[in-house]
Amino acid sequence: MATPLPEATEKYFAICEEKLGLVPNVLKAYAFDIDKLNAFSAMYSDLMLGESGLSKLEREMIAVVVSSINRCWYCQVAHGAAVRELSGDPALGEAMVMNYRAAPLDARQRAMLDFAARLTEASHRVDEADRATLRDAGFSERDIWDIAAVVGFFNMTNRVASAVGMEPNPEYHGAAR
Amino acid sequence: MATPLPEATEKYFAICEEKLGLVPNVLKAYAFDIDKLNAFSAMYSDLMLGESGLSKLEREMIAVVVSSINRCWYCQVAHGAAVRELSGDPALGEAMVMNYRAAPLDARQRAMLDFAARLTEASHRVDEADRATLRDAGFSERDIWDIAAVVGFFNMTNRVASAVGMEPNPEYHGAAR
Amino acid sequence: MATPLPEATEKYFAICEEKLGLVPNVLKAYAFDIDKLNAFSAMYSDLMLGESGLSKLEREMIAVVVSSINRCWYCQVAHGAAVRELSGDPALGEAMVMNYRAAPLDARQRAMLDFAARLTEASHRVDEADRATLRDAGFSERDIWDIAAVVGFFNMTNRVASAVGMEPNPEYHGAAR
Amino acid sequence: MATPLPEATEKYFAICEEKLGLVPNVLKAYAFDIDKLNAFSAMYSDLMLGESGLSKLEREMIAVVVSSINRCWYCQVAHGAAVRELSGDPALGEAMVMNYRAAPLDARQRAMLDFAARLTEASHRVDEADRATLRDAGFSERDIWDIAAVVGFFNMTNRVASAVGMEPNPEYHGAAR
Amino acid sequence: MATPLPEATEKYFAICEEKLGLVPNVLKAYAFDIDKLNAFSAMYSDLMLGESGLSKLEREMIAVVVSSINRCWYCQVAHGAAVRELSGDPALGEAMVMNYRAAPLDARQRAMLDFAARLTEASHRVDEADRATLRDAGFSERDIWDIAAVVGFFNMTNRVASAVGMEPNPEYHGAAR
Amino acid sequence: MATPLPEATEKYFAICEEKLGLVPNVLKAYAFDIDKLNAFSAMYSDLMLGESGLSKLEREMIAVVVSSINRCWYCQVAHGAAVRELSGDPALGEAMVMNYRAAPLDARQRAMLDFAARLTEASHRVDEADRATLRDAGFSERDIWDIAAVVGFFNMTNRVASAVGMEPNPEYHGAAR
Repeated sequence: MATPLPEATEKYFAICEEKLGLVPNVLKAYAFDIDKLNAFSAMYSDLMLGESGLSKLEREMIAVVVSSINRCWYCQVAHGAAVRELSGDPALGEAMVMNYRAAPLDARQRAMLDFAARLTEASHRVDEADRATLRDAGFSERDIWDIAAVVGFFNMTNRVASAVGMEPNPEYHGAAR
Repeated sequence: MATPLPEATEKYFAICEEKLGLVPNVLKAYAFDIDKLNAFSAMYSDLMLGESGLSKLEREMIAVVVSSINRCWYCQVAHGAAVRELSGDPALGEAMVMNYRAAPLDARQRAMLDFAARLTEASHRVDEADRATLRDAGFSERDIWDIAAVVGFFNMTNRVASAVGMEPNPEYHGAAR
Repeated sequence: MATPLPEATEKYFAICEEKLGLVPNVLKAYAFDIDKLNAFSAMYSDLMLGESGLSKLEREMIAVVVSSINRCWYCQVAHGAAVRELSGDPALGEAMVMNYRAAPLDARQRAMLDFAARLTEASHRVDEADRATLRDAGFSERDIWDIAAVVGFFNMTNRVASAVGMEPNPEYHGAAR
Repeated sequence: MATPLPEATEKYFAICEEKLGLVPNVLKAYAFDIDKLNAFSAMYSDLMLGESGLSKLEREMIAVVVSSINRCWYCQVAHGAAVRELSGDPALGEAMVMNYRAAPLDARQRAMLDFAARLTEASHRVDEADRATLRDAGFSERDIWDIAAVVGFFNMTNRVASAVGMEPNPEYHGAAR
Repeated sequence: MATPLPEATEKYFAICEEKLGLVPNVLKAYAFDIDKLNAFSAMYSDLMLGESGLSKLEREMIAVVVSSINRCWYCQVAHGAAVRELSGDPALGEAMVMNYRAAPLDARQRAMLDFAARLTEASHRVDEADRATLRDAGFSERDIWDIAAVVGFFNMTNRVASAVGMEPNPEYHGAAR
Repeated sequence: MATPLPEATEKYFAICEEKLGLVPNVLKAYAFDIDKLNAFSAMYSDLMLGESGLSKLEREMIAVVVSSINRCWYCQVAHGAAVRELSGDPALGEAMVMNYRAAPLDARQRAMLDFAARLTEASHRVDEADRATLRDAGFSERDIWDIAAVVGFFNMTNRVASAVGMEPNPEYHGAAR
């Protein structure tokens, strides 16, 4: 992985450095193959930064709850920091990591995270009744798709990160405490 | 979702129709948003059809074992058919769905699927010892990445499909029996 | 097990051959002891073929759902074929194997299979409330006994088959697809 | 169930009364249908009282360990009493109910019960390695069959008893303490 | 542990001998350090013998249900005996060990034990709804604290006893049968 | 709980305030009854601050690993802060909360935490082999007792805290980051 990066990748990493102050290690891990990096980045950007009925904070909250159930070291550290930053509430970031049921959430966000937990722990039991609960909490069909897509995405990355022992950038630990 | 598809999507679906004889319902489900469809298709093509030390059949075997643990209706049907087609061995497709431990696999493929099962069921316990077992079975670091990436991908799609109640194309059931 | 079979057993196997086109391997496995074969066959015939408020198809559906939870290779293959044959609906057989919750069942059959799953997974939690749910779905006390007896029977045979590594007759794989 | 019993059943129950001092409630439960009672009794007698490389006490120990994992009220009470009677060791009966790992067993019996527990809890993971462990502990192929058959039988009866809320005869509680 | 006991410990053990007819082995296990013995005894006496809205029998019932879930040999034997003695009902003691759901409990005690089981098995899911269920069953806030404290205490002692392989005094087995 | 505190309690809380800068909410929760507060404090002080072959940091590491498995909001927050303070290593505190397997531990501490996890998750399976593993890692019998006692204690407090919805003092969140 010490081969020089393609120019496009270098540019992308430079933008990360500028915007985030670091290049997330997950991107460096994917950088050994430009196609894989591009596919990952495209899906990540669409899901976490694109248009959605879910706020960016809500998408990060889902990311951490999923990663907490799967006990993914990388994703809990990196996205726990994102929850703290986007919310300005360090205790909220800790609660997403430790037990989201302890956080003072409104009914809508609690329903969203209950669904995320159930879809992570027992997706084969999810059915129309679960979707109805989300609708009752105010979510549209498109919102349900977006929740499912974020839950799915982190169930993917949690496993890739754990499989290869990915380490989070140390800057995340102290960020936004 | 009854809006006319963008031209690029229509073209892509036409190619599917020609090559596979059908447009997989998962693609139709993603087609409501061209960015999401593209991100999904790019990642799928890279992982399942791109260069890898794993054969296409092996990647499909992993897909079905993961989907069987998560009991995803869509993915077991669609990728079970793929295993039957690529292997020419209908019983192998059934074994991946029912219990891969019953299949007459060589040591390499058994290690690959044991890792896939463990990474799906308990990713937080995966560590260096598990990677060492894969290396002993003949897998390179890159192969380990590829196994992890396929395991991750189907842990994602299983959840999206279950969350929205996705139905597989009926053509899969009888294919390659 | 290569000793010649007693005459009664030979006759029984000849009937199987005639009616089913094969002697199920489970019977051959029990044939080493005529008392065990008789006890097994008597119970099987009474439960699966005798008088009951449950149709034969319904009993086979229960058999496959139980065997799917226990991931019994033999029983999923053999009784999955029976569901396909009795129903004339290959997709129904696949759904019983993969995730019965994905099948388009009426409320009565869904309640029956939910009870079968619960009794298989957590029999110590089954109580009057579960029986009341079955009664509300239209089942009599005798029907409840019959459901329980079929669930119990396959929880037995699944374990015997897995313990000795029983292989299903290959004819089942392609039957009634 | 208040209909008069057929003569053969009456005779069978009279023998129970004479030999055991009671008619086990499980037999009364099956007595509503003479075919079901006969099938159950035949299998029970063959398994628990017939010729085997396992002693009757060992078969009862397996019965209680399985019933303890499934937390079956009827079977733990009735077969716990049997272990106390056959062993003359009340603490052994309690240990089979509470946690067989706490009993001072020899290596052979420990291997037998470890297999029984594994086959009850995760039959889909049982394979050749488990059978090899039993062989190393001194069990023949026929013994392995007998262990599996007893484990299977109680996984059946536990579920039938729990499904209908079967109550054990009160005489068992104080027997052989 | 063969060192002579401090005078205070000797006195305490003499009282045990007089009142209970034995010195519980758990106290002997803690006696290697007078501070640990005192801390354990003080908490035990307060919880199990002090003022509470729960009867002593109810506290012992909780103790056994918790110990049964954790399958603690020592605590099931010792506190199973206590339930038999305090209730004068040997079958109740057995039911707490084997499956409390099979005991003929009133709604209040059933709610109490359901909460104890849930708090033992999945404390992270306990929330206001669970407390409301207890209040509806007639428990005060202080009662809820006391249930939780007894559940907690036996989740502690079960683990200490299992960790060091603690053996119960043999006198318990036959007591109050 | 708004009644004035007894003088001894007030003194104890004043010492807490002086030494820790706060009175831990868990102590306030116990303060409604001086006997319960004393019993809790005595056991806590002995276990976490008394003489032991385990360092104070090691005991806090165990506390957090247990609390993480039980997902106890209060204890993860309070003792996570203690790990950060005693170690001067904020990432270590996060790893104990998120997944201790990701921390760069030496073999002795890894064995200690593996035992703590196993004793928390499946105490009924702990036996001589587990103790032998600890001895091989350099722990004495007394050390094993101390590990077990700390594991037990937090399995108790986790459940009490979760049962009543205990909130950690907010000062912990930002401490020693």
